[in-house]
Amino acid sequence: MAEKEEKFTPIDKLGEFGLIDHLTKEIKLIKASSIKGVGDDCAVLEFLNKQTLVTSDALVEGVHFDFTYVPPKHLGYKSVVVNLSDIYAMNARPTQIIVNLAVSNRFGVEFLEQIYKGIKLACDVYEVDLVGGDTTSSYSGLMLSITAIGEAEEKDIVYRSGAKPNDLIVVSGDLGGAYMGLQLLEREKAVFMENQNMQPELKDFGYVLERQLKPEARKDIVDLLEKLEVKPTSMIDISDGLSSEVIHLCRQSKTGVRLYEEKIPIDPSVYKLCEEFKLTTTTVTLNGGEDYELLFTIDINDHDKIKANPNLTVIGHVTEESDGMNLITRDNKAIKLNAQGWDSLLNKS
Amino acid sequence: MAEKEEKFTPIDKLGEFGLIDHLTKEIKLIKASSIKGVGDDCAVLEFLNKQTLVTSDALVEGVHFDFTYVPPKHLGYKSVVVNLSDIYAMNARPTQIIVNLAVSNRFGVEFLEQIYKGIKLACDVYEVDLVGGDTTSSYSGLMLSITAIGEAEEKDIVYRSGAKPNDLIVVSGDLGGAYMGLQLLEREKAVFMENQNMQPELKDFGYVLERQLKPEARKDIVDLLEKLEVKPTSMIDISDGLSSEVIHLCRQSKTGVRLYEEKIPIDPSVYKLCEEFKLTTTTVTLNGGEDYELLFTIDINDHDKIKANPNLTVIGHVTEESDGMNLITRDNKAIKLNAQGWDSLLNKS
Repeated sequence: MAEKEEKFTPIDKLGEFGLIDHLTKEIKLIKASSIKGVGDDCAVLEFLNKQTLVTSDALVEGVHFDFTYVPPKHLGYKSVVVNLSDIYAMNARPTQIIVNLAVSNRFGVEFLEQIYKGIKLACDVYEVDLVGGDTTSSYSGLMLSITAIGEAEEKDIVYRSGAKPNDLIVVSGDLGGAYMGLQLLEREKAVFMENQNMQPELKDFGYVLERQLKPEARKDIVDLLEKLEVKPTSMIDISDGLSSEVIHLCRQSKTGVRLYEEKIPIDPSVYKLCEEFKLTTTTVTLNGGEDYELLFTIDINDHDKIKANPNLTVIGHVTEESDGMNLITRDNKAIKLNAQGWDSLLNKS
Repeated sequence: MAEKEEKFTPIDKLGEFGLIDHLTKEIKLIKASSIKGVGDDCAVLEFLNKQTLVTSDALVEGVHFDFTYVPPKHLGYKSVVVNLSDIYAMNARPTQIIVNLAVSNRFGVEFLEQIYKGIKLACDVYEVDLVGGDTTSSYSGLMLSITAIGEAEEKDIVYRSGAKPNDLIVVSGDLGGAYMGLQLLEREKAVFMENQNMQPELKDFGYVLERQLKPEARKDIVDLLEKLEVKPTSMIDISDGLSSEVIHLCRQSKTGVRLYEEKIPIDPSVYKLCEEFKLTTTTVTLNGGEDYELLFTIDINDHDKIKANPNLTVIGHVTEESDGMNLITRDNKAIKLNAQGWDSLLNKS
């Protein structure tokens, strides 16, 4: 399933500096804020009259990804995207990334080149500069720790804490796809482990596979909101499942919420797969992570500006804190939301 | 040798968010540039009229440290210091850090608390804010990836590339201590593995052990240079050994160098240990890493300003590139420098 490695050059053949030079040699800086990139003790950046946003996330082999079905180029791409998503979730724009890579000698230079191809592709697509990083060995497995840096004017930054009663809760795109993509890949892996002559049955599922293997960050939504002149009152990206993210917004805003089960946007292929896997779509969308959609609240007076847009779905509204955090089911029952989202310390898949 | 764990609380008992909250709950922000710390999608920072410096380094268990003799609190402290050192090496001041921690379930909450105690101690000592991070599981071992952020006025930043012929090469403190501390710890570990009743013989070696286990970044030197009104022409911190760092400065400045063996500052205990271990001090100082001293070049006209200072030693001078990079030995022979410094891809100790 993963790309075959044709050639294997041991990483210690190049040494640490040789390897960094080799992997970063073609990098050009495009951002005005990038004063100095790779090659000194630090990157030097300049954000004139803007605030700086910084976020950092690590992806660990065996915990966050499995090279049985994750091609290294996709891993590189995704590891950048998940960090950029955190910048967009502040209503800001990413400008630079720094990449720390720890690898065991099981991986060759060619494999790392593929990871860096994915990293560079993400840099091109999202127009960010790779300005630094560290490549080191590990005793087992591979780990990517990426720091993303972004900028925004102070007045534009959206925190998790600004939601207020009567605000509408809006989500971009649709939910549950990345989780069902993972279920599918895990199932086909299990089949493949049983019988290595079996070919994986993955056709017709391009959408959910792409959601899992090559997610995108919603740059377009941040651009759209600017165009529509809507500043969300609070915002977060959906990395751990809708339920857990809604709870974050409510707790930090000191509000309650009513989410409507029937409003949650779901792709038809997710319905189909849920049926096949005997899962309910609501469980999958509430608890399945990695969709990297944006979840935000807007003032009710902004409703007209967004309501015609197919990329945005109103899924509920904010209430007083004392009303609690509830999901209103299709048969009109209120169920208390709890955070069973994806937690790397609990779920090792 | 390492501290015994009295109590063991499994990390998954708290979950990812519970664990981050638990480890970061007492953190207070002290820097004016820290607008928002832990608890949103990103940290938000503001650097008015200054440039921003960012650096990130990972420390991997079994590659960069060994819990047989590294107490977790020291690891936390050191992992911050090595990153701050990169900020000082730009003649800048650190302001914030972000911590990514990947841990297997072999480690309990109490162990992570010790690591965070060390991280927070370093934050207090160096007056930086911990503004974010990620805690995730790993299948084996522990890895800390830290991003340090700093600030400086554009006119004050010192790159690796500004050295010019006739500049003096200066080093702070003394060299080789951290490497000999490591040799000592590795020897005592081997003895302990043979016979677990043996007590390690570490008395009289407090200096080199501290250099290895609890190094400091040379904040004081950056302050001193400012006070002396000396702006180095180029600078780097010594993490991988003097030889490799000198080569970085020369390559990026397109110069040669003459280093004088007899001038390299060495602590008496390092001489003593080198004798015991049958190593030459020159090999140890040229190739042993982790001293985190600053290596810089200054215009020869600034010599008078620094020459009386016991923290600073002139060890050579910059030459034309065509003269090459040479060590002048005690018997006045020129030996070509090569980079055999510490490389995590080559040395797994």
